[in-house]
Amino acid sequence: MSEIHELGRRARAASRALRTVTTDAKNAALEAIATDLVRRRAFILEANAEDLAAGREAGLSAPLLERLTLSESRLEGMAKDVRAVAALPDPVGKTIDERLLPNGLRVSRRRVPLGVIGVIYESRPNVTVDIAALCLKSGNATILRGGKESARSNQALAEVVAAACEQAGIPGDAVQLVRSQDRALVKDMLTASEYIDMIIPRGGAALHQFAKENATIPVITGGIGICHVYVDESADPAKVLPIIFNAKVQRPTVCNALDVILIHSAVAGELLPKIAADLERAEVRLRCEPRAYEILKHHPLACLAGPEDFDTEFLSLVAAVKVVDSLDEAIEHIQQHSTQHSDAILTENYSHAMRFVDEVDSAAVYVNASTRFTDGAQFGLGAEVAISTQRLHARGPMALEELTTYKWVVLGSGQVRA
Amino acid sequence: MSEIHELGRRARAASRALRTVTTDAKNAALEAIATDLVRRRAFILEANAEDLAAGREAGLSAPLLERLTLSESRLEGMAKDVRAVAALPDPVGKTIDERLLPNGLRVSRRRVPLGVIGVIYESRPNVTVDIAALCLKSGNATILRGGKESARSNQALAEVVAAACEQAGIPGDAVQLVRSQDRALVKDMLTASEYIDMIIPRGGAALHQFAKENATIPVITGGIGICHVYVDESADPAKVLPIIFNAKVQRPTVCNALDVILIHSAVAGELLPKIAADLERAEVRLRCEPRAYEILKHHPLACLAGPEDFDTEFLSLVAAVKVVDSLDEAIEHIQQHSTQHSDAILTENYSHAMRFVDEVDSAAVYVNASTRFTDGAQFGLGAEVAISTQRLHARGPMALEELTTYKWVVLGSGQVRA
Repeated sequence: MSEIHELGRRARAASRALRTVTTDAKNAALEAIATDLVRRRAFILEANAEDLAAGREAGLSAPLLERLTLSESRLEGMAKDVRAVAALPDPVGKTIDERLLPNGLRVSRRRVPLGVIGVIYESRPNVTVDIAALCLKSGNATILRGGKESARSNQALAEVVAAACEQAGIPGDAVQLVRSQDRALVKDMLTASEYIDMIIPRGGAALHQFAKENATIPVITGGIGICHVYVDESADPAKVLPIIFNAKVQRPTVCNALDVILIHSAVAGELLPKIAADLERAEVRLRCEPRAYEILKHHPLACLAGPEDFDTEFLSLVAAVKVVDSLDEAIEHIQQHSTQHSDAILTENYSHAMRFVDEVDSAAVYVNASTRFTDGAQFGLGAEVAISTQRLHARGPMALEELTTYKWVVLGSGQVRA
Repeated sequence: MSEIHELGRRARAASRALRTVTTDAKNAALEAIATDLVRRRAFILEANAEDLAAGREAGLSAPLLERLTLSESRLEGMAKDVRAVAALPDPVGKTIDERLLPNGLRVSRRRVPLGVIGVIYESRPNVTVDIAALCLKSGNATILRGGKESARSNQALAEVVAAACEQAGIPGDAVQLVRSQDRALVKDMLTASEYIDMIIPRGGAALHQFAKENATIPVITGGIGICHVYVDESADPAKVLPIIFNAKVQRPTVCNALDVILIHSAVAGELLPKIAADLERAEVRLRCEPRAYEILKHHPLACLAGPEDFDTEFLSLVAAVKVVDSLDEAIEHIQQHSTQHSDAILTENYSHAMRFVDEVDSAAVYVNASTRFTDGAQFGLGAEVAISTQRLHARGPMALEELTTYKWVVLGSGQVRA
């Protein structure tokens, strides 16, 4: 693990320096990064062109190539995002709670950076800058391991970021990229507990599973959402159609998009055909359990569901549909099949809304709103580094505060324990 | 993993029920446990007598047998502790932060139980009841795996606890004990991610290392403290002696006891002999690096330090001693050798105090107080389940709140994402 060892040693040193860097100094570094993303665009776009050429040669699909592509306007967008991070409040140094004990000890918890954060991600090169900016603002050093397809672009971006940091008086080692594309290095990262304090995998289910199984460092798992919308007996039809359409169609390729529609039998006959017709505008296909299919059998895009359809994150214009006879049955179904990401109830019944919120144990539970809101920016956190579906440390959108830990500060005047 | 599978399945079901149990119901169960610990003392003490007989036969040391021993008064003490947990505020259901977004969505974070907590511990049977009470109060189900020596006592205690829960209307499966003493089951527990949400190992360094290396479930590591007290040039001699004596002597076998004395060269010649003489009252032996030994060479309990002495948690009446020439050297030494548990500076210099607190990155950093205060009860948290020296989720004493996570609750009126 020579490369990780060397990167780790340097990251640890940088993280010590970052611990006491002021907010002003961090913001100056972010401003320098934003400036240089545009100023050094020729250097970055040249590297990106090489990635694109290699990608075309390797036969990457058009959407993948599109995701890989940088341009002047995309670099300007990235610079804008970095400035937005600079504008966010610094979580570091904040006192969380403080108490004066009867013996005169003043005990408080103070937010401090986590230390060194390892991020394993795929494809889009803007992630390199996003993560670097969020980690820097929260006082963490970062070791980034991007995908093969964007290796040259990531390298150029990491160089620009590190140089801008140095120029602003912050160690360039605060942001480092793993150069080797050897897959064994991923495992090295996952076990480098001496150097890395937290691993964030950003990618598909296989990457998360691999990280969970191989890491000896805490891993933030997430990013996978089988999201349910339950249409209760008392749902307001005027809200149902727009919410379901938005949750399914607005951006179907992401984790907070709707996958499963549960609908109460008392309203299914009336509402399901309307929902299906509305979704037909976006050519959404519906995989129906038998009772739902009975209602939708004449719908052109409906078919009978297969055994896996209620345990699938579709990431496309497909939804599974099931008729239930009660709120209990809906909650039970969600408990069995949810990935604990985002689940919603559409209802006008107060007690049903309260019960759903209390009993459905997901990172985000909704009443009468689209599941698409599960997002750091949408929740008012300014930005996000990942969406956690695990239970420890952070749940749901992880923003700056979730990139910190705390220390206990105890100020005394000679106290000893009795 | 048949036994863990079966326990896990039941714990998961119990944890679902616990999710919506009221504080009153949980407190009633805790009161029933407290009552039954005393009422059913004959049953418990009989099991304990069997453990003690087996322990004597196996040649357990007198201190180990002492730790293992239950008595009427110890059961009364345990009952009192359970009632103290009942009296603590319930962390579950609390709203952490709430915001009304511009689009009218009301977004909040609400504390919820972690789920199922696995605890692997050794020796003292009172831990069985302590942990069960704290987990129950915070709405979690528990799977306990105690040591071989106290197997019968733990079984009896777990039976009493489960029966009391049932009687109070809470599923008895909320608290379960692993019956088999097969060591393979520990590994099964560490990988039962389907059933267990967090593992707390309570034991020595070997157990923590094993858990860290084998777990696929988040593990709270901790419990190991190489604790430093740095006597600054400007330390108040009147505070130095009592604090060092307390930190080293008051209870030397625990993780927050002092291990290493660092002392500034400007005051070492004057203060070190006094410190050594004071510690001699408790027969504390001192392992000194050469400059410290030069000062203490006539002290009857001083010797030259070996290569491991600054990286050892002594857990006994031994301390390592080193002379340093500056605050920087002290901080650097701590960064190199600390286990990030509890470290203190003794100083009257404001800037040195602030720098120490800012730069030493331990779970608890102290100015002019004994490191022995790192403890849930001492910090005013009421109780503790463990002391974490890791960085994610919780750091330092873990109390009820650290046994919870949160969910995002989003209350809407038809909002969709633009």
